[in-house]
Amino acid sequence: MSERIILGIDPGTNIMGYGVLQVVGNKPNVMAMGVIDLRKYGDHYLKLGKIFERVNGIISEYLPDEMAIEAPFFGKNVQSMLKLGRAQGVAMAAAIHRQIPITEYAPLKIKMSITGNGKASKEQVADMLRRMLHIPQEEMGKWLDATDALGAAYCHYMQMNRPQTEKKYSSWKDFANKNSSRITGQ
Amino acid sequence: MSERIILGIDPGTNIMGYGVLQVVGNKPNVMAMGVIDLRKYGDHYLKLGKIFERVNGIISEYLPDEMAIEAPFFGKNVQSMLKLGRAQGVAMAAAIHRQIPITEYAPLKIKMSITGNGKASKEQVADMLRRMLHIPQEEMGKWLDATDALGAAYCHYMQMNRPQTEKKYSSWKDFANKNSSRITGQ
Repeated sequence: MSERIILGIDPGTNIMGYGVLQVVGNKPNVMAMGVIDLRKYGDHYLKLGKIFERVNGIISEYLPDEMAIEAPFFGKNVQSMLKLGRAQGVAMAAAIHRQIPITEYAPLKIKMSITGNGKASKEQVADMLRRMLHIPQEEMGKWLDATDALGAAYCHYMQMNRPQTEKKYSSWKDFANKNSSRITGQ
Repeated sequence: MSERIILGIDPGTNIMGYGVLQVVGNKPNVMAMGVIDLRKYGDHYLKLGKIFERVNGIISEYLPDEMAIEAPFFGKNVQSMLKLGRAQGVAMAAAIHRQIPITEYAPLKIKMSITGNGKASKEQVADMLRRMLHIPQEEMGKWLDATDALGAAYCHYMQMNRPQTEKKYSSWKDFANKNSSRITGQ
């Protein structure tokens, strides 16, 4: 059975969340989730170094095939955007270094693909992920900041899976058999 | 004689300049300068990948002890700041990966340390660098976009050198001998 591992990253400058999703056949399973607390490192370069080191470590441990990251809102000031960009760049470099393709998802897209509602709250997204991925409640509370990262990985799984489960047909006959209601003139 | 190699980087999203300065004893010498043209790579991730690959390559070739980068202005919009931050983050990751310390210099500081005027034009900075570092005129024209990077490296050399040449004294007597005009009551 095919196996694919997706690393989800939510790259902030204070807290960086990550979630590792293993997809065996068509079934997703949480391998790991956690947060990297960067607040204790006062120095900006030390933070960047820590992000690179940790993301590198996570890649070495779980050997993901793909990386999914949450794209940021553009509401902040230019200086914080530059800092956020650097944090993201460093995390991305760890993936680029290992030739792992990166896909970016807007928060609205992530929420939509998980809850069906682009305006769902962080708690609603977390609760839906918990139920769909059978994560124990106590694990979830501990890693709430990792939810967005796991959400990005789950969104990527949904996107990648759609062609196989919804749109791929081996032939016109196959399509017709599975979509008889959509065929007119039968 | 001590040798120190400084890699200067001017990390843009379209053109990334670099300059490598070798300091033997107290004398700076240009080892390399050049530009990485990123405009041909339409895809944002491809650009980031190229930056990482090239900066990694430059580090492997010249084995710099330190990296100096030009800090950006904060006049752009949030989206371009995020992109610039990512480009910088990827370039910085290449240095972080090899444990090369990074120092950032504001454009005003760089211009000031080279020409004595924080508002000097790009051409004035280039001309001063050309004369101080004995770069052939034809080389300079070819790599004008690398000037800011070389300027950052030169500024770092000036900063790092100042304690030894201007402010370091072996003893009070040494200081007094060298600064008799500043000592009152003699």
